[in-house]
Amino acid sequence: MQRYFTNEKLSLFEPFFISGDDFHHMSRVMRMKSGEKVYIVDKEENAFIAEVIEIGESAVKLRPQERIEKSPELPVQITIASGLPKGDKLDLIVQKATELGAFSFLPFPAERSISKWETKKVRKKIERLEKIAKEAAEQSHRTHIPTITFCESFAALMNRFAEFDYVLLAYEESARSNETKTLVATFEKMKPGEKLLVIFGPEGGVSDKEVTLLTQANVLFAGLGSRILRTETAPLYFLAAASYFFELEKSF
Amino acid sequence: MQRYFTNEKLSLFEPFFISGDDFHHMSRVMRMKSGEKVYIVDKEENAFIAEVIEIGESAVKLRPQERIEKSPELPVQITIASGLPKGDKLDLIVQKATELGAFSFLPFPAERSISKWETKKVRKKIERLEKIAKEAAEQSHRTHIPTITFCESFAALMNRFAEFDYVLLAYEESARSNETKTLVATFEKMKPGEKLLVIFGPEGGVSDKEVTLLTQANVLFAGLGSRILRTETAPLYFLAAASYFFELEKSF
Repeated sequence: MQRYFTNEKLSLFEPFFISGDDFHHMSRVMRMKSGEKVYIVDKEENAFIAEVIEIGESAVKLRPQERIEKSPELPVQITIASGLPKGDKLDLIVQKATELGAFSFLPFPAERSISKWETKKVRKKIERLEKIAKEAAEQSHRTHIPTITFCESFAALMNRFAEFDYVLLAYEESARSNETKTLVATFEKMKPGEKLLVIFGPEGGVSDKEVTLLTQANVLFAGLGSRILRTETAPLYFLAAASYFFELEKSF
Repeated sequence: MQRYFTNEKLSLFEPFFISGDDFHHMSRVMRMKSGEKVYIVDKEENAFIAEVIEIGESAVKLRPQERIEKSPELPVQITIASGLPKGDKLDLIVQKATELGAFSFLPFPAERSISKWETKKVRKKIERLEKIAKEAAEQSHRTHIPTITFCESFAALMNRFAEFDYVLLAYEESARSNETKTLVATFEKMKPGEKLLVIFGPEGGVSDKEVTLLTQANVLFAGLGSRILRTETAPLYFLAAASYFFELEKSF
């Protein structure tokens, strides 16, 4: 069943309309007919099964027939802060981390980032990533579309720490020195709805200066197993571990 | 420090030679000089720090100076059986799953695989994947290079089940129906050194016929969290969950 998001708030049995790109997708790409059913997620992240009532000239009329109660979202909110990686690796991070349940993304220029974002290009880059996140959210049957916010400096990233209940650094040196306790201890402390920020360096890792700043800010350094992970693989490890712990082991 | 694999068995302080592609990489690409140090993994998967003694015309002479005792390998052996996915997705699966600790790969033509491998092209495709696995193993500091073996049919895959202590199917319908216990229960039963095979369908999932055959073979069906994962994301989830459980929670 196809999935779409709407910016409206929906109520059971009250008809609504979909226009724009999704109208085009439903009418032209999928060639939907009256009576077909789709999943719709509304602006309050409630999911419904809706029936197509009529395909108009510029909008599809639908009616929500059933509310989906089971949430596909992780019980904790995990935000991924990625030091800007090379090339199009951030596309892969956003796509896969959205599938794996990331709540939001904070890309930032790390000291060792080779890739730089010119100010005038930031808006376009974020829009591109937002589109990737939306498509991945639909594909993975999520009700929340992760937001993407560019932090223009490491200081701007650190200024946001107060918004979170926990802040971790995924640290290569912790993996090397066989650090295994921090991630498990953090997950075990977390309660449903709490917010965690996890920071990943770019290809060259976090710099000594960044490590010092994070130490001063009482950020915990966590190892992610015994192997050295690429910058685009580490966030996927983190989210899969969170899903395993919170959704399979604990089943909150 | 650069990492290389050798097909020889090494002993501490006994000089050895590296030729071929790795000689080229050391002498021409990295422009190494006498006295520099590299990681070397030998054919018995023992890791050493070795010193470059001399750069010759067609070989580098090295001497192992220190044995690395800590293993970067998962304490259990996880084999990934992937129903042939579209395009170059298997490249991504092999690269990332190698970083995340996969022991070996068994690609197979699933009933719903759109991609087909012509017999005459199998060898070339496997060689390409072996190269990706070797490079990912070096990059992630592993001592084991995962092997890749093509199963020419679903029956050929099933014929290998007896080689494993556990066989699981990562099943989308299990995720949908909120199945959370199988993966945790399996990991909790496993002892160091045991072998697990996990089967992933292609984009369209496993077919009804394949589900029936796997049910008859007593394969367990496991859900991987609350979201629908793409065929190339599910193996990464599985291995990250295994690392979290065996390396961080249990620290075998």
